Amino acid sequence: MSTPPLKRPIIGIVAGDPNGIGPEILVKAWASKALHPGCRPLVIGSTPVIEQAIRLVGAPLLVRSLADGVALPADCGDDVGRIDVLESAAFPVAAIHHGQDTAAAGAVSGAWLDHADRLARSGVLAGTVMGPISAKAMDMAGVLSSIASHKPGHEAAYLLLRSGALVIAHLTDHLPLREVSAAITRAAVSTLIGKLAEAMALWGLGAGRIGVAGFNPHASGLEEKNEIAPAIDQARAAGIDVDGPISPDSIFRHCIEGRYSAVIAMYHDQGHIAIKTWGFAGNNVVFLGPPYPHTTVAHGVAYDLAGTGQADHSMIQNAILNAASLAAGRGFY
Amino acid sequence: MSTPPLKRPIIGIVAGDPNGIGPEILVKAWASKALHPGCRPLVIGSTPVIEQAIRLVGAPLLVRSLADGVALPADCGDDVGRIDVLESAAFPVAAIHHGQDTAAAGAVSGAWLDHADRLARSGVLAGTVMGPISAKAMDMAGVLSSIASHKPGHEAAYLLLRSGALVIAHLTDHLPLREVSAAITRAAVSTLIGKLAEAMALWGLGAGRIGVAGFNPHASGLEEKNEIAPAIDQARAAGIDVDGPISPDSIFRHCIEGRYSAVIAMYHDQGHIAIKTWGFAGNNVVFLGPPYPHTTVAHGVAYDLAGTGQADHSMIQNAILNAASLAAGRGFY
Repeated sequence: MSTPPLKRPIIGIVAGDPNGIGPEILVKAWASKALHPGCRPLVIGSTPVIEQAIRLVGAPLLVRSLADGVALPADCGDDVGRIDVLESAAFPVAAIHHGQDTAAAGAVSGAWLDHADRLARSGVLAGTVMGPISAKAMDMAGVLSSIASHKPGHEAAYLLLRSGALVIAHLTDHLPLREVSAAITRAAVSTLIGKLAEAMALWGLGAGRIGVAGFNPHASGLEEKNEIAPAIDQARAAGIDVDGPISPDSIFRHCIEGRYSAVIAMYHDQGHIAIKTWGFAGNNVVFLGPPYPHTTVAHGVAYDLAGTGQADHSMIQNAILNAASLAAGRGFY
Repeated sequence: MSTPPLKRPIIGIVAGDPNGIGPEILVKAWASKALHPGCRPLVIGSTPVIEQAIRLVGAPLLVRSLADGVALPADCGDDVGRIDVLESAAFPVAAIHHGQDTAAAGAVSGAWLDHADRLARSGVLAGTVMGPISAKAMDMAGVLSSIASHKPGHEAAYLLLRSGALVIAHLTDHLPLREVSAAITRAAVSTLIGKLAEAMALWGLGAGRIGVAGFNPHASGLEEKNEIAPAIDQARAAGIDVDGPISPDSIFRHCIEGRYSAVIAMYHDQGHIAIKTWGFAGNNVVFLGPPYPHTTVAHGVAYDLAGTGQADHSMIQNAILNAASLAAGRGFY
């Protein structure tokens, strides 16, 4: 498969769990005509799921099915009235059970994600978007490892959130808090500082200083002394503009006020409390780790709305435009 | 010692470490004439320290020395041009070493705090204020236990911060984060819920629902299941309007938006990140635990400014007015 010449980056979109709102909000985002000025969108999925979503939403859109394993057509993703679907694992309409967790839906979610990841790593896609998945359904199918942050045999992936001046990368995610201390190692902190610095430069996330939060009150404890501070010294020696460990209760305010372009948080709530208390619309979510921008939505499958055509598409629309903007080095959309 | 009839509550003020800015900012707050409309202020300390601070600040104030162990005069704290000092542990001018941690200063800070605590527990004082102390100096003197949150043989004391609609009581303070899990017990959570509910009613902090934060991401873990949730059930059974455990990254935003009148945070940074990222002027700090309002300042001894008369007195002024307002059941000043 060869990469066609790019005017706007080709962004691969995985609708997410077919039993959730993912396919419908993807169709609504497409129908909004907001995507095409910024990118050439391409669904990695199964045509019946998209056609069903078009019927549910009542959008005046056609579908073009593209075979996997051959070159993409030169006009891929160019027609705003036609959804291009690169055929991945098939999922028939009969298999759709809106509002339910099923192993089949979990399995296909994982297969689409893996497929999009391979295409992005081979350069066919400039970035990817993950619609709302069901971790429970993927767990039922044994494919949770298809999620960026769980991918074995690949680099670790770290959740990065942004709201206004607050840009926060998280060293750990859904780990029980009593287990976080052991996960704070010099190597992990050092890796994340490097990935963040690289993403800031490559994706246009900012050119200023990185602040690294401590773990304990006033950044005063063993984790800071033994792991975080040495990792910062190492990154500085490698020429990265980085400061810390900073008191966790001050660093986010410093970032808001411009002292840092981005902050590294040691655990899920350290960063999430800051950004969600300050005010987070959920529109800027990306994983640091894969060698391409992989964005996602901050909401779930919303099973109560699945199949109604009523779900709000603004987050997936933003996730797609974010992936395109980051891939073009222009920062978040 | 008998309690004189009160028009405005008598608030006992401990200047803090005599080598720091405490005595000077106390004198400046007094000279501002902002204290007396809300309370009758009374310094628990040593006259030479206050007289020296008056000289450093250049304030046109007199000092009246009151003996301990006899009834307070009926006009105690009534004269805005005269600082009433109840003589506690003596500290001569020669012992003052501005900008230095000394065991003597630490010892006298502790003695004054203990004295004020005794007077408040016996009903002579309606509330107390702690100026900036040096934990290092108090540790040198072996009297760290004089601080409210360290007092052995007394009830536990919990730090409560308030900024606008955010009112946050902290279950633990400067504990290494990896040790917090073990400190989250059903008994501790239950005690703090009770104390917070009592303070809300008695001090006028609010009449609505209390929200209790979880400990782990999305409030989903063992600490929630085994300790926090049962404590909440117990408090509800006792008639307290309390909800939780709530996801730590959502609860503070809920409080700002009015769903809760106050939040219980499990650890220092959980509450401090929320309030300081949102915006905290440091003007509303009180300990929950003692049977009287004990307020303090959010800043330290500022050794670099000590002896210059230049330090800002707004926080200690607010701490005094807060203690008075809480003692009168009117909430924070």
